[in-house]
Amino acid sequence: MSSATVKVLSSSRSLYGVRVLIALKAKGVEYEFIDEPDLGNKSKLLLESNPVHKKVPVLFHNGKPICESLLVVQYIDETWPSPADKGFLPQDPYKRALARFWADYVDKKVFEGCLIIIKNAEGELMEQGRSVVRKSMVVLDGALHGVFGSGPYFGGKHINLVDIALGSNLCLIETIETLGNFKCLDENICPHLYAWAKAVPQYPAFKEGLATAPSEKLLEGVREMRKTLFGLVE
Amino acid sequence: MSSATVKVLSSSRSLYGVRVLIALKAKGVEYEFIDEPDLGNKSKLLLESNPVHKKVPVLFHNGKPICESLLVVQYIDETWPSPADKGFLPQDPYKRALARFWADYVDKKVFEGCLIIIKNAEGELMEQGRSVVRKSMVVLDGALHGVFGSGPYFGGKHINLVDIALGSNLCLIETIETLGNFKCLDENICPHLYAWAKAVPQYPAFKEGLATAPSEKLLEGVREMRKTLFGLVE
Repeated sequence: MSSATVKVLSSSRSLYGVRVLIALKAKGVEYEFIDEPDLGNKSKLLLESNPVHKKVPVLFHNGKPICESLLVVQYIDETWPSPADKGFLPQDPYKRALARFWADYVDKKVFEGCLIIIKNAEGELMEQGRSVVRKSMVVLDGALHGVFGSGPYFGGKHINLVDIALGSNLCLIETIETLGNFKCLDENICPHLYAWAKAVPQYPAFKEGLATAPSEKLLEGVREMRKTLFGLVE
Repeated sequence: MSSATVKVLSSSRSLYGVRVLIALKAKGVEYEFIDEPDLGNKSKLLLESNPVHKKVPVLFHNGKPICESLLVVQYIDETWPSPADKGFLPQDPYKRALARFWADYVDKKVFEGCLIIIKNAEGELMEQGRSVVRKSMVVLDGALHGVFGSGPYFGGKHINLVDIALGSNLCLIETIETLGNFKCLDENICPHLYAWAKAVPQYPAFKEGLATAPSEKLLEGVREMRKTLFGLVE
């Protein structure tokens, strides 16, 4: 397909934007990257293409905007289908429901815990944040091993929706460990997830996707969120 | 299919449970309803079948549990497919993304506003809650008319994922109008959504689904949530 028909409006500091880039790389779809330079002063294009949430990333395909990163990844999977069981969602409805459930879990629970740490510099709430994030890692470790099976990825030999949802947050998790001065992705407590976190950035599409959004840029994004939303500066 | 293979663990006071019942009725799938009588003292079956969120509804199909109401509705749509464009999601990937986006909007924004009203008996926050809910109704009115087209439902002549997501909350919206002493589904401000709210409870599957969870029971659920979560009693 022509590269001109696929465009991604995002920021190199957007963790959610990385999801879309990884998905497009995995499908071998060429795209044009449109940078949203200042998320504090949103562009006309962003406001017009995502008037409801006003957030990046937005995928444009043949001029039509698609929003919300996990929905965009599903759109990409349905628009450029892969051979059976190599897509981001398997064929079987039950397995599809499981993949959607765990991707949703990442957005609801992992991010919830991270946000507590981001906005609380110390004290009891910080400890609560650590506990929520640690627990979510243990739960995901159990799912990776007990629900999804053989690994190394949630999708088996190929990445799926959960790999993309969680893998794009690896940089956030590292930042959280620094901010919270603790270890949540611990080899002894979450052995399967620990191995996954080492393996997933090496998966070709991930490597390429992450290269377009270097971790120092993503870290800048987290720091900016901390400062803008909660007035916290390191 | 045999009724014994499909079971729904829910409560007649669960707004989310109603979504699953409506979806099964629309597909003509028979099911056994398992009542979760006391959401303050959860059953072993609930804790074992949804250990992550510990919430109803849970759909059991051939013994396997599927959780999270909107994911269950999508599972039902994929497991018992309808003729083209009569399913809960259309065939076209872009239209599918739109339906998922707006169903997600219902859970994120409509419920967010309702929650502000539920937990704030008066004052500035209550006014903020009214404003959030009113705005979400105007946005949904615009989507129904401008994005989804001809009506009367979001799905056109048949209900889709958005109809199920929002329609199951009609009773909540009525309660919110009473608690907040205001009108949010106003005929003059949201004419399309107002007409939709009159039409959708008459759609056969909705009528049957709502009959299994009468509005006084759903109201009890909202009041219990108010009391349990926020200590508010009318």
